[in-house]
Amino acid sequence: MQHRLDVLAIGNAIVDVIADASDDFVTSIGMPKGSMRLIDEAEADKLYEAMAPARELSGGSAANTVAGLASFGLKAGFIGQLADDQLGQIFTHDIRSLGVEFETPPRGDVGATARCLILVTPDAQRTMNTFLGAAQELEPHTVNPMHVAQAKIVYLEGYLWDPAAPRAAMYAAMDAAHEAGTKVAFTLSDSFVVDRHKADLATLLDEGRIDILFGNEAEILQLAGSDDFDDAVDSVAARVSTLVVTRSEHGAIARRGDESAKVSAEPIERLVDTTGAGDLFAAGFLAGEARGLGLEKSLKLGAIAAAEVIQHYGARPEADLKALAGDLLA
Amino acid sequence: MQHRLDVLAIGNAIVDVIADASDDFVTSIGMPKGSMRLIDEAEADKLYEAMAPARELSGGSAANTVAGLASFGLKAGFIGQLADDQLGQIFTHDIRSLGVEFETPPRGDVGATARCLILVTPDAQRTMNTFLGAAQELEPHTVNPMHVAQAKIVYLEGYLWDPAAPRAAMYAAMDAAHEAGTKVAFTLSDSFVVDRHKADLATLLDEGRIDILFGNEAEILQLAGSDDFDDAVDSVAARVSTLVVTRSEHGAIARRGDESAKVSAEPIERLVDTTGAGDLFAAGFLAGEARGLGLEKSLKLGAIAAAEVIQHYGARPEADLKALAGDLLA
Repeated sequence: MQHRLDVLAIGNAIVDVIADASDDFVTSIGMPKGSMRLIDEAEADKLYEAMAPARELSGGSAANTVAGLASFGLKAGFIGQLADDQLGQIFTHDIRSLGVEFETPPRGDVGATARCLILVTPDAQRTMNTFLGAAQELEPHTVNPMHVAQAKIVYLEGYLWDPAAPRAAMYAAMDAAHEAGTKVAFTLSDSFVVDRHKADLATLLDEGRIDILFGNEAEILQLAGSDDFDDAVDSVAARVSTLVVTRSEHGAIARRGDESAKVSAEPIERLVDTTGAGDLFAAGFLAGEARGLGLEKSLKLGAIAAAEVIQHYGARPEADLKALAGDLLA
Repeated sequence: MQHRLDVLAIGNAIVDVIADASDDFVTSIGMPKGSMRLIDEAEADKLYEAMAPARELSGGSAANTVAGLASFGLKAGFIGQLADDQLGQIFTHDIRSLGVEFETPPRGDVGATARCLILVTPDAQRTMNTFLGAAQELEPHTVNPMHVAQAKIVYLEGYLWDPAAPRAAMYAAMDAAHEAGTKVAFTLSDSFVVDRHKADLATLLDEGRIDILFGNEAEILQLAGSDDFDDAVDSVAARVSTLVVTRSEHGAIARRGDESAKVSAEPIERLVDTTGAGDLFAAGFLAGEARGLGLEKSLKLGAIAAAEVIQHYGARPEADLKALAGDLLA
């Protein structure tokens, strides 16, 4: 079958508000550095008031991934819920101007567009405070099964598993995908997702609803309920067709049945802001998968995209990833 | 008299929307590279749609200057009109979080907050398309004469001379300043301001309403009606107490009566985005003036601030300018 889209993603439609912060400031708000938490609008307003001057850039985990796919020259679509406000206009402009299909209508009855207040400490670590607003109101009817069938891969964001409506939307997408022979990729997103939804995730894996699973070390350890990385990888890899585990500066590994591959992190000139590293790694890997390049080249594309995004503020690529990929994607 | 503020500025309250663009794109919209034009909301929407993904950062010429003053450790205030919308909240947060006093209430009856669509070409030149929106509705009553009297220097943005209400506000500020012994600094902002308001500007100078005048080469040539730079500087310097002329990579000069000084541009590592260079030069010079440092040191502070801001996207400093100034401001 001819696919019109390489990847169709469902995720939070978010604008990032990115400010430098000291380690002390992050400690003072009770956040472990590098973590993510959900906050309500009142908490967001209070934290924003205490933050340094910020820059606003479109974000959202799966949205960053499709931005990366577009930069690699692949055809991607996105589904996510915005409010009818200025931040929603910014998100819409930024994703469409990349050539990503994005047709989910904004809504006037769902509060404000989601924003993520990101504190970047001097070590370039990001600590994220997310006000989900409109993003958590994504309804299942926004997922068109015909649209899903037109994609090689559907990519689902674990962050969206928490609220009920988007979870139902993702179930609908998985059903439509397996009906159509579209592969389902899922990112665990954060340890808290694994912690809260371990039973759901186990069922998804055991029912074969997920074809490609992305996680970092902490998420995989938690999902496996193990303290040993190799054991955890073995145990999760046995339950999913393809497993990709990112390891920050130690690169990443992939497993598919008996096949395994690994990649080192790409060298960088200067580390600025690690926001989006995992999202862009997923973009590179999915670009390789959609082109049928095999685990090793797909991992390499992931490492290239992640290295680009951590060398500037913001979670979407500034460079032309297709050019950086060179012969790998030629 | 003890002054509570070093500088109180009146200017456009604007959020910048900054995107990379090719030379061809800038040509295709009929803009000379490096220029500024005013556009209405429909034109802004149309241009935005055609632009690449963008980052949003608070801007506004005089607002950038007070941001620079705050980074130098000086006490600054700002007056400008916002609408009651999300971009207005962003502007308010960013300027207040620097420690700048900003109390002008946003208004719900003046359309949207101003935005400047900035196209940055590969040579780091910026071409600016400004939708003034709420900013041009600044009313004279927003200027409190007591507030003006508490500042050593009032700084006025030429861009705001165009619309009638803010022009009246700036006249009110000049009157209050001279009543109180507060110095008046004025930036010509753009050649089109000089072109359209040459008679007004001549009157302001001849009535002694301006104490410190900022301009770049093109603006000073146009104001003097001369083709020769040295002649133009001589002629304008004879009509104002202090004249500062910025010359991009050739540094800047200052004249005060018989006294003259000049400074070279500071060396930089990489040129990224020239937006805000003039605004930050003014910040450095005014910091020196407010501290009574004399022309040469004030110019040097201007060069330091301008060099910082052109090495990253956005028109406000990211580094601590006080630290960069070192002994100069100790």
